[in-house]
Amino acid sequence: MKLWGGRFTKPTNQLVEEFNASITFDKELVEEDIAGSLAHVEMLGVCGILPKEDVARISEGLKTIRERVQSGEIEFSIENEDIHMNIEKLLIDLIGPIGGKLHTGRSRNDQVALDMHLYVRKQTVHLVELLVQLQEVLLNQASQHVDTLLPGYTHLQRAQPVRLAHHLLAYASMFERDLERLVDSYKRVNVCPLGAGAIAGTTFPIDRQYVAKKLGFTRVYDNSMDAVSDRDYLVEFLSISSLIMTHLSRLSEELILWSSEEFQYVELDDAFCTGSSMMPQKKNPDIPELIRGKTGRVTGHLLSLLMTLKALPLTYNKDMQEDKEGVFDTVKTLTGSLQLMAEILKTMKVNVQRMQQNVEQGFANATDLADYLVNKGIPFRKAHEIVGQLVLYCIGKQKYLLDCSLEEFQSFSSEIQADIFERLNPIAVVEARTSEGGTAKAQVLKTLEQKQERLTKLTSWLSEHQVEV
Amino acid sequence: MKLWGGRFTKPTNQLVEEFNASITFDKELVEEDIAGSLAHVEMLGVCGILPKEDVARISEGLKTIRERVQSGEIEFSIENEDIHMNIEKLLIDLIGPIGGKLHTGRSRNDQVALDMHLYVRKQTVHLVELLVQLQEVLLNQASQHVDTLLPGYTHLQRAQPVRLAHHLLAYASMFERDLERLVDSYKRVNVCPLGAGAIAGTTFPIDRQYVAKKLGFTRVYDNSMDAVSDRDYLVEFLSISSLIMTHLSRLSEELILWSSEEFQYVELDDAFCTGSSMMPQKKNPDIPELIRGKTGRVTGHLLSLLMTLKALPLTYNKDMQEDKEGVFDTVKTLTGSLQLMAEILKTMKVNVQRMQQNVEQGFANATDLADYLVNKGIPFRKAHEIVGQLVLYCIGKQKYLLDCSLEEFQSFSSEIQADIFERLNPIAVVEARTSEGGTAKAQVLKTLEQKQERLTKLTSWLSEHQVEV
Amino acid sequence: MKLWGGRFTKPTNQLVEEFNASITFDKELVEEDIAGSLAHVEMLGVCGILPKEDVARISEGLKTIRERVQSGEIEFSIENEDIHMNIEKLLIDLIGPIGGKLHTGRSRNDQVALDMHLYVRKQTVHLVELLVQLQEVLLNQASQHVDTLLPGYTHLQRAQPVRLAHHLLAYASMFERDLERLVDSYKRVNVCPLGAGAIAGTTFPIDRQYVAKKLGFTRVYDNSMDAVSDRDYLVEFLSISSLIMTHLSRLSEELILWSSEEFQYVELDDAFCTGSSMMPQKKNPDIPELIRGKTGRVTGHLLSLLMTLKALPLTYNKDMQEDKEGVFDTVKTLTGSLQLMAEILKTMKVNVQRMQQNVEQGFANATDLADYLVNKGIPFRKAHEIVGQLVLYCIGKQKYLLDCSLEEFQSFSSEIQADIFERLNPIAVVEARTSEGGTAKAQVLKTLEQKQERLTKLTSWLSEHQVEV
Amino acid sequence: MKLWGGRFTKPTNQLVEEFNASITFDKELVEEDIAGSLAHVEMLGVCGILPKEDVARISEGLKTIRERVQSGEIEFSIENEDIHMNIEKLLIDLIGPIGGKLHTGRSRNDQVALDMHLYVRKQTVHLVELLVQLQEVLLNQASQHVDTLLPGYTHLQRAQPVRLAHHLLAYASMFERDLERLVDSYKRVNVCPLGAGAIAGTTFPIDRQYVAKKLGFTRVYDNSMDAVSDRDYLVEFLSISSLIMTHLSRLSEELILWSSEEFQYVELDDAFCTGSSMMPQKKNPDIPELIRGKTGRVTGHLLSLLMTLKALPLTYNKDMQEDKEGVFDTVKTLTGSLQLMAEILKTMKVNVQRMQQNVEQGFANATDLADYLVNKGIPFRKAHEIVGQLVLYCIGKQKYLLDCSLEEFQSFSSEIQADIFERLNPIAVVEARTSEGGTAKAQVLKTLEQKQERLTKLTSWLSEHQVEV
Repeated sequence: MKLWGGRFTKPTNQLVEEFNASITFDKELVEEDIAGSLAHVEMLGVCGILPKEDVARISEGLKTIRERVQSGEIEFSIENEDIHMNIEKLLIDLIGPIGGKLHTGRSRNDQVALDMHLYVRKQTVHLVELLVQLQEVLLNQASQHVDTLLPGYTHLQRAQPVRLAHHLLAYASMFERDLERLVDSYKRVNVCPLGAGAIAGTTFPIDRQYVAKKLGFTRVYDNSMDAVSDRDYLVEFLSISSLIMTHLSRLSEELILWSSEEFQYVELDDAFCTGSSMMPQKKNPDIPELIRGKTGRVTGHLLSLLMTLKALPLTYNKDMQEDKEGVFDTVKTLTGSLQLMAEILKTMKVNVQRMQQNVEQGFANATDLADYLVNKGIPFRKAHEIVGQLVLYCIGKQKYLLDCSLEEFQSFSSEIQADIFERLNPIAVVEARTSEGGTAKAQVLKTLEQKQERLTKLTSWLSEHQVEV
Repeated sequence: MKLWGGRFTKPTNQLVEEFNASITFDKELVEEDIAGSLAHVEMLGVCGILPKEDVARISEGLKTIRERVQSGEIEFSIENEDIHMNIEKLLIDLIGPIGGKLHTGRSRNDQVALDMHLYVRKQTVHLVELLVQLQEVLLNQASQHVDTLLPGYTHLQRAQPVRLAHHLLAYASMFERDLERLVDSYKRVNVCPLGAGAIAGTTFPIDRQYVAKKLGFTRVYDNSMDAVSDRDYLVEFLSISSLIMTHLSRLSEELILWSSEEFQYVELDDAFCTGSSMMPQKKNPDIPELIRGKTGRVTGHLLSLLMTLKALPLTYNKDMQEDKEGVFDTVKTLTGSLQLMAEILKTMKVNVQRMQQNVEQGFANATDLADYLVNKGIPFRKAHEIVGQLVLYCIGKQKYLLDCSLEEFQSFSSEIQADIFERLNPIAVVEARTSEGGTAKAQVLKTLEQKQERLTKLTSWLSEHQVEV
Repeated sequence: MKLWGGRFTKPTNQLVEEFNASITFDKELVEEDIAGSLAHVEMLGVCGILPKEDVARISEGLKTIRERVQSGEIEFSIENEDIHMNIEKLLIDLIGPIGGKLHTGRSRNDQVALDMHLYVRKQTVHLVELLVQLQEVLLNQASQHVDTLLPGYTHLQRAQPVRLAHHLLAYASMFERDLERLVDSYKRVNVCPLGAGAIAGTTFPIDRQYVAKKLGFTRVYDNSMDAVSDRDYLVEFLSISSLIMTHLSRLSEELILWSSEEFQYVELDDAFCTGSSMMPQKKNPDIPELIRGKTGRVTGHLLSLLMTLKALPLTYNKDMQEDKEGVFDTVKTLTGSLQLMAEILKTMKVNVQRMQQNVEQGFANATDLADYLVNKGIPFRKAHEIVGQLVLYCIGKQKYLLDCSLEEFQSFSSEIQADIFERLNPIAVVEARTSEGGTAKAQVLKTLEQKQERLTKLTSWLSEHQVEV
Repeated sequence: MKLWGGRFTKPTNQLVEEFNASITFDKELVEEDIAGSLAHVEMLGVCGILPKEDVARISEGLKTIRERVQSGEIEFSIENEDIHMNIEKLLIDLIGPIGGKLHTGRSRNDQVALDMHLYVRKQTVHLVELLVQLQEVLLNQASQHVDTLLPGYTHLQRAQPVRLAHHLLAYASMFERDLERLVDSYKRVNVCPLGAGAIAGTTFPIDRQYVAKKLGFTRVYDNSMDAVSDRDYLVEFLSISSLIMTHLSRLSEELILWSSEEFQYVELDDAFCTGSSMMPQKKNPDIPELIRGKTGRVTGHLLSLLMTLKALPLTYNKDMQEDKEGVFDTVKTLTGSLQLMAEILKTMKVNVQRMQQNVEQGFANATDLADYLVNKGIPFRKAHEIVGQLVLYCIGKQKYLLDCSLEEFQSFSSEIQADIFERLNPIAVVEARTSEGGTAKAQVLKTLEQKQERLTKLTSWLSEHQVEV
């Protein structure tokens, strides 16, 4: 009979057992569940709700079960539905009916909420750690490529030359925001729901602050109905994760483009590529492709949860059981993607020469000619038009701006002087962009330094938030 | 070394092995993969590409592997990446280098496409079967409740009384369309991609029609690049599945409402409900809640795949490996949901009395009074206004229309005569709706019969499309 | 006062008027609404529900309103909520209280369902037309580029050389399936809901078949509750549209890649590109980028509707008003995208030389060397390995396979003879792929012809389904 | 000719004009665009890039245009594409070629990013304001219903009685988190992108801090490539908005349930309901239904943007133009939904009697009996079973727990004494839940007070963040 089966006259249908049970996936929460129960029963003792000796026996029982789980001795059963009932059943089997006292003043509704809070808290800290590691690789590569130039693109068309460091730092900026969001979300994750009972609190004189403190929470939910029906922190976690994947996906797209024979900007290490079953010459950038592909997966989980929560009345509804698998899979996906992206960036070979060559071939210096004319007093819009016509002329002649003679330049504007040749040189073009956050060397170094400092701060945040549960 | 590793100088990174491997989920395709290989190698023999003796040894090897898989002897390895490479490796280990001839004229690109086509074909037929079974339950319940009245709702407000059969047939109409869509999609599923090679076909004189016929396909892809990069049939499968879940979710919502103490229209069987860990009195409609909750899951898979496919250039990209898990999970979700919904409907107890009582309490006959006035020559819009005011009057007096005296009726319109009392009786109201598809008995019986006929046709479609692979 | 206001004691709140009204967008349905009303009132006359003279006056009134709408004389009002109430109010203002008879035996619930069916039917036919036109352009370009070679890609790495016609025909295959799906869906769109009333049918002796026939419908909904709450055909329309956008987006991605300086495979016409406000040299492939970007938009509409419908109990709920804007916007997005893609493909310049050059530079002929070895009796897997090592050797020497001497070839396999040089020539490689659907010329021409035939069939479908409403 | 057309040889295709132009929707940004230009040109003067007199003329011109826009004199043109080019063109038309100097050191890429940052900043503050107002209504209703009891539900089954205040405060908790998220996001919104130029900064000696300060920004983007391609803050805005809608949708679901004849817990004010075109008695809760329905819409926008951004390489791509309409529509949807929800809650009539009646009818006090037994020393799990059997017994007898005699109680457990009758009384049940955040009066009052305090803090945040632009 089910532990809740007193009021029922028939056994559960077999198909229902399988469809209804969450143990196949919520066993992921076994550590959290036991840790929560240990804190709960300790509090029951402290508050005089259970005698000390019961507390001692239950605690010992739970620890024994934890050891057996860790050593792989235990198989959970679908008949016991979920991780909570499985553990409670194991406990009663182990120490007898006294194990039935564990659930005093508690419901699965607040228990599962507790487990998920503990889980997401742990994973939030772990993702911060992985992002910090990726960021370190990125900043390191940037610092090695301050003097590497490549064409900056808009619309996948060459726009203006930039330093590779500058390009990489754009991604570092994205990951900085991701880190900021994770840290912000932490304060909504680190709230203790235990003590909310099924919905309305409990009649036992429990001490919620005691449990919360024991488990490292900053505060407790101040409304019991909210505590058992809140899944906001999971939506927020999936939203942040979707953005992280979006950033990884944009970076992956570039690595795929850059690995093509047409670009040849980078070569990924053999250890991070795979071959073809049919075509012997193939070396494919599988990992960036997979990361890009998995972006849909994480966003799919976000949508699923929002759709599941839509229009659910208070408080707990069984639909909410669907909150877990998507979160677990997201954690797995992000963990792998972040680790691998760091490795790939660390081991890839940058083709500095090819980048430089592409900087020289093209019209990426056209804006600088317009700016040059503006400095001669021509309104920008007019200058833009003049240069546009000069570019058109060059395309007709199959050459670039620097291939023109001074006469040719002057036939478009008499304001152009011989200093133009120096001015349109790629390095001059790059160095001219001295505006704050621009691609001139001093600016890039300054941004690099700022980002390094912010990373250091996060490292200390990390060390302050290492969790034991 | 990897089977494709000739051109590589380093072993694959360990993290990559895990992230990249699909064997953890594509092992689901083992039957399809071996069946495809058997047809392929048979064709290689028939076309003289491989000697008969090689074909025989390879076929025998494949069959041996299949048996070992079925008896659970075999563990697949992550190092061999996917189901295709795992099988090929097992084959070579079993029969020696000659096993390496199996992949002649074939690539994993067309092989995996074949496997998925076989899989989705099988599942499409199976879903048709499950929907037919659900439909049978629904039609049976409808036929038993032709004379049960309940309030029909719009905006969750009582609108007009209807027969319960009529209400249930609305769902039967939805599932009819789902069946129609599955059957339509079948023709896009049952197309053979094998022979497309990696991308451009093969240099061996293969016979694609032979393989297609052998495996029960209607036709072959007529463009090899399309064959290896088409995932449309998976998107279509997920779209249809999302709609099926939407219908199940609407029905679930009603079962949840109807099981509440406030409605009390049905009582679900104990075998399909569960209790609470804390509250001893609870009997919860978990299964309808779970089905409703899982709607988000399936729509999430649909979105994921659309997002993954978005903007992929031709032809195969590794992102496409992400096409499988969502489809597998959708199949599992739908299979369980359809089976359980059929059981729940079959075993639930309908509270006929309560429904009748709610039909009598309310203003669900107000439209009939307006129609009555129209038949006296009053324009409908004016009649509507008169009845609206009468309803307002009744609410003030805390009574219903049939509680009014003839004098009260006539104080709102002198056209109202004594026959109004008969006319506003619930059963008269229901029987007055004789328009095609309306809720009068004759109409309901006619629709029921039509749906029964269509179901019979689907049963014969099913028997013609039983698949062996 | 509202036309439905008899039972209300207060006017509608002003904020509610704006939030609730759908007239700002459902005015798009004005033609459908009037056409539906004309058929309805004609039927009311034929069935003797309204006297002929009322029918005549109402019909004339409706036609007058239609003319005034077309000539732009009429402004709809938010106070009258939606297109249905606006038209009815205009009618009553125009011809007096008799106009109030139009709504006899009808509800807005079945009326709006009718309007949307008429709208989606018209748009389905129009999309078929636009897809047929795009297909014509595609087939025409294919027929002009049967002899143009380019590298076929997997993982954005050069895989095997293919004919450009072959590449384009892969897209033609996608659009063929889209057309098939639209035609399949048509039978679920072309069903008449009118006569379902609010929910349960009507008490008037209406003739639903008469209206259906008049409006060109194949059949009527056989259950009134389903008729007013079915939005499946809209979900199906959005699903099909999402797939069409996915195909356009994949094609757009290629055009963007191909327009880059790195690929230089095509040049889009100036008339279909735009420039930069700052950079005078820029010519951006805006249209493909926008089409690619708009894929998210259409999938967003699909998701929105699925989410809105999730868990709605029968029958009509106000949430369903949200079904329109997404569909209207999808129609607009697809119409523009299909028209522009046809224009872009028609006017783009293909850089045949550059494609050919990339075919020659690379290892796209490596599979052919492996196949060559297989034909000498070496198992494919072994042959694959040999060629992999040869490729690695070539990369070290910075050359391609055809740059090797016979001696070099033979140092990897003694089976290789002098005929290898001819065999690895790009055109030989392409022509060797004679398998059905392969890239050999004969196969490409055959597929091209088949697709042309299917297009012809669609053209006749189109001419049979031209709608007047 | 286009302002960027120097390099083009053909006019833009007419279809392209329409498809490409964003002016139809980005005119929403006209105030932001002009404000940004005014700050930009002022800075150009301060930095000596433009002479003071040019700055004066341009500033005056911009202000004149702003006035004309506000007075409705100006029609924007599709030919000028977007709000930026429209304004620049109007300026040049107004003050001559000197207007062409405005765009010095600026690109549309950083300009549009600036406009959107200003827009989202303004809307973030406005949403905080609306949420604060809703919260005030909610807290006020809660404070009036501290002593109103109703059944608390899980699985839509009556679980345990709660105070209505307690129920409402659960929603207040959700909106508190929404407010927190908006405030957190503000720091990522309030960052100035201007000065990033097209991609790499500018060659003019601009002062980005000057502009930032002038416009009230806290800091500037520290990487120019990130500045023009960052759309994270829009995704974050849509994520937060999706959660707000989810909360409103859950509340709406309850209002719809509560308005049904079956629940009758509340009556919405006539001013916030609408009627039926056919059924004279109907009074429908349209607004909660619409809010619930619009949840899909906002989540659809979130998904659209994530899908659009997926895999875009750096930096600006035209796809990003798709970032606006979804955000604008989300703002409109949320603004209306929040305002109306506040009005509805403020004006609804609570049926206190009906709620109380439902509290008394049912087994919502069953947990208390179990807790009672636990206090007698019975393990909770055993107590749960005993009470379950007693409930089953009562159902058989068609009565509730309090209808049992002491003998009946004792036949299930001899521990039960006469004090049980007092203990199971609804108000005793509610008052027993004294755990922190529970539904006992003292706890509810404490939570109410805390929420009031937090609201006060937000009010002062609001007054500090009133924006002028």
